Amino acid sequence: MAELKQLTKRSENYSQWYNDLVVKADLAEQSAVRGCMVIKPYGYAIWEKIQRQLDDMFKATGHQNAYFPLLIPKSFLSREAEHVEGFAKECAVVTHYRLKTNEDRSGVVVDPAAKLEEELIIRPTSETIIWNTYKNWIHSYRDLPILVNQWANVMRWEMRTRPFLRTSEFLWQEGHTAHATRQEAEEEAQRMLHVYGEFAEKYMAVPVIKGVKSATERFAGALDTYTIEAMMQDGKALQSGTSHFLGQNFAKAFDVQFTDKEGKNDYVWATSWGVSTRLMGALIMVHSDDNGLVLPPKLAPIQVVIVPIYKNDEQLSAIDARVEPIVNKLREMGISVKYDNADNKRPGFKFADYELRGVPVRLVLGARDLENGTMEVMRRDTLEKETVSIEGIEEHVQKLLDDIQENIFKKALTQRNGWCKTVDTWEEFKVEIEKGGFILAHWDGTAETEERIKDETKATIRCLPFDDENYPACVMEKEPGVDMLTGKPSARRVLFARAY
Amino acid sequence: MAELKQLTKRSENYSQWYNDLVVKADLAEQSAVRGCMVIKPYGYAIWEKIQRQLDDMFKATGHQNAYFPLLIPKSFLSREAEHVEGFAKECAVVTHYRLKTNEDRSGVVVDPAAKLEEELIIRPTSETIIWNTYKNWIHSYRDLPILVNQWANVMRWEMRTRPFLRTSEFLWQEGHTAHATRQEAEEEAQRMLHVYGEFAEKYMAVPVIKGVKSATERFAGALDTYTIEAMMQDGKALQSGTSHFLGQNFAKAFDVQFTDKEGKNDYVWATSWGVSTRLMGALIMVHSDDNGLVLPPKLAPIQVVIVPIYKNDEQLSAIDARVEPIVNKLREMGISVKYDNADNKRPGFKFADYELRGVPVRLVLGARDLENGTMEVMRRDTLEKETVSIEGIEEHVQKLLDDIQENIFKKALTQRNGWCKTVDTWEEFKVEIEKGGFILAHWDGTAETEERIKDETKATIRCLPFDDENYPACVMEKEPGVDMLTGKPSARRVLFARAY
Repeated sequence: MAELKQLTKRSENYSQWYNDLVVKADLAEQSAVRGCMVIKPYGYAIWEKIQRQLDDMFKATGHQNAYFPLLIPKSFLSREAEHVEGFAKECAVVTHYRLKTNEDRSGVVVDPAAKLEEELIIRPTSETIIWNTYKNWIHSYRDLPILVNQWANVMRWEMRTRPFLRTSEFLWQEGHTAHATRQEAEEEAQRMLHVYGEFAEKYMAVPVIKGVKSATERFAGALDTYTIEAMMQDGKALQSGTSHFLGQNFAKAFDVQFTDKEGKNDYVWATSWGVSTRLMGALIMVHSDDNGLVLPPKLAPIQVVIVPIYKNDEQLSAIDARVEPIVNKLREMGISVKYDNADNKRPGFKFADYELRGVPVRLVLGARDLENGTMEVMRRDTLEKETVSIEGIEEHVQKLLDDIQENIFKKALTQRNGWCKTVDTWEEFKVEIEKGGFILAHWDGTAETEERIKDETKATIRCLPFDDENYPACVMEKEPGVDMLTGKPSARRVLFARAY
Repeated sequence: MAELKQLTKRSENYSQWYNDLVVKADLAEQSAVRGCMVIKPYGYAIWEKIQRQLDDMFKATGHQNAYFPLLIPKSFLSREAEHVEGFAKECAVVTHYRLKTNEDRSGVVVDPAAKLEEELIIRPTSETIIWNTYKNWIHSYRDLPILVNQWANVMRWEMRTRPFLRTSEFLWQEGHTAHATRQEAEEEAQRMLHVYGEFAEKYMAVPVIKGVKSATERFAGALDTYTIEAMMQDGKALQSGTSHFLGQNFAKAFDVQFTDKEGKNDYVWATSWGVSTRLMGALIMVHSDDNGLVLPPKLAPIQVVIVPIYKNDEQLSAIDARVEPIVNKLREMGISVKYDNADNKRPGFKFADYELRGVPVRLVLGARDLENGTMEVMRRDTLEKETVSIEGIEEHVQKLLDDIQENIFKKALTQRNGWCKTVDTWEEFKVEIEKGGFILAHWDGTAETEERIKDETKATIRCLPFDDENYPACVMEKEPGVDMLTGKPSARRVLFARAY
């Protein structure tokens, strides 16, 4: 239990609790390279589950994977004017391609003779290199649409980093699609946002608000950026995935034209969309508690752990024998189960450790249970225990996993909706934003007002939400009103929050 | 058919045939970045199948995935003396972390103020950063073994590149394991070599010779390097995967010690092992022919293509209706099938295109077939056609896929064994090596002789093969003899070849 005691309580210091949890649950750690993390096997196993599910969803919507170079010629970045403003600043620059041994043979130095003619940038995102490639792939309407996704590492040099939430190197997927018409591209951008939303809610059990970004918050080079926004337990929002309608900006920058059915030439319409290891941050922060991680069963690397309690080898053998068919049956049902009969740790330590790691269901079998034909079942989300007959335990576990998946979503939804407020005056806004959460308020639509609000309260416009009947607290009255700050006309309410 | 005609014949120019095929079969293409390729969706789909299968095999042998940083501090490379000699020379060096807009706003330049204190290297391989991390993970024998794998991109600055075979950036997996004993680490290194061998033969249908490298050909920093060597159709060998027993070299370089059961401290024992997108090169070169790719069914993204032949919409509708249940049943059986009833390409074009892409089985259904209740079945490996009853076609296809998988392995094995020769004299060696293939010959065990042979014939020692009863032509007489060049004593024959 020693380990557990060291986890900071959320109420004491939420930020410290998060940092502690990432390390103690063996998810990730700082590396020797500033701002870059090591994703540890347990953390990576969760990421693999996220990847596999998203990849299936991308393929089900007609996308294929491909791979484009890590390095981008520096000049590519300046082709699209807005893009370079948004991305060119903080990135890793490769200037040389060789090291050589020091003269005193004490180490290696950069070989000045091996200087690149043009510097290369480690991709912060791949629109430029991909659209430079698409130029050769696209000639006619018959070559469209191109529906391609890439799983990759990217790098944005960050000054202040936090594991998963903001790291210099991170893992992500980036979809890059090309279309013959504006409408098709806009539909694609929105389709993929809804894929993200569905993934967040059905698999991560994280409720999200979908909407469109204000111009200020758009991706550099996009005509529209769609977003899913989640609410953390501390009242701060986390942008969890974005999908961009890029118009013809990149096609124009890289001269990608196609001949349509009538033989006319036009620039190609584009989208891009991505989610990253940042999703891990949302997953951790939305569900977990002071005992550690709480994982949704659909993404838990270990869904069920079985711990034996015994006084001697004879008892352990009897328990082992009884557990074996249960393990086999659970595996046949597609449930990932671990039987931890390791002899070098006490049951109490194991209990605390698996709670810390967020294993959704714990089964305990002792000598007394064996006599009674029962097991103790503990569910991680509520920490409730019950004694259940061994007979039919597998079906019980299956139902319980479904129940946990549903329950943690509902709990998160209730919490999230509790964070949603509607505010009409600037005074009220300043008070409420201090308490955290989402605030629906009127805004006059100008970047100037948006900037003033941000400067004075650190709140940003998270999005102009779409209608979403599942979340009545957030359904906009789309009625016009007046900006809370300037009193100018406002077409609709928008969603504010302080954000990660 | 126009496309097909442009594929160079193997007999004319094998190297050009390979380059043509990679591009025309839509596997990969050169990118705007020197030496880096774009892996196109069809090529990447094959790589994904390779990845998925290998990943399953790694997990079945107890390994977990993790992720370590892309960038490595320059000083790490010089920690292990031999490692730096072998790897430090040609790598991409990050020196700056920011760009800024040109004074004339015409583009971006490197911001000289954003110079890194210590340069960072894009990983050419990750032993150094990983062993620096393992230092914190390993304290006691209870922390061992660590069985970790990473799927990643790596970069080695290459002057002469060829798609898949040698590119500056490539995709690979690198296993990095840590053990309490020398024996356990040696066993692990050999176990993983056998996993590679099994994968190559059972899934890629590529026969490989397993063995241990000579000291000269070892991985920089290893005590032993094990290898699988494949033979291409032009008589050149391709090293297709390696597994390294690293001894305590990296543990010593990064001071990774552990306390054993008796409370004594010792350095940890290590292995590393990797295969890369180079496997794609082997896959292409071993099986394919002048018509295009020949893919093993187990790795083919599309295993079966169905092409309708029709004169009017009515006929097409009738064929569509008959094909639908066949497609459904094949999918239920886990077979990936594409029904190509696109109207904008003629059947002849489709036939040539799917041959070029190596789809193992082609089914053709015309109006006449519909009347007769038959289909035309073509197998890509032999190009043989037969007419088969539609009734039971799915089981026929299933059997045919198995048969093709087996047949192309056997064919490759016969070819490979045909390339294996035993040679006793230097004169004979010089003649035979010009013809290509593997040559078993006596060698005195010195690096000097190895170097002379390489200088004079471009042949290298591929490995000292293990016993392998499946390949009698390569089974060593382990009897001693005399070096063909120097006449000095030789303990055993070793395997020479010119290699990619």
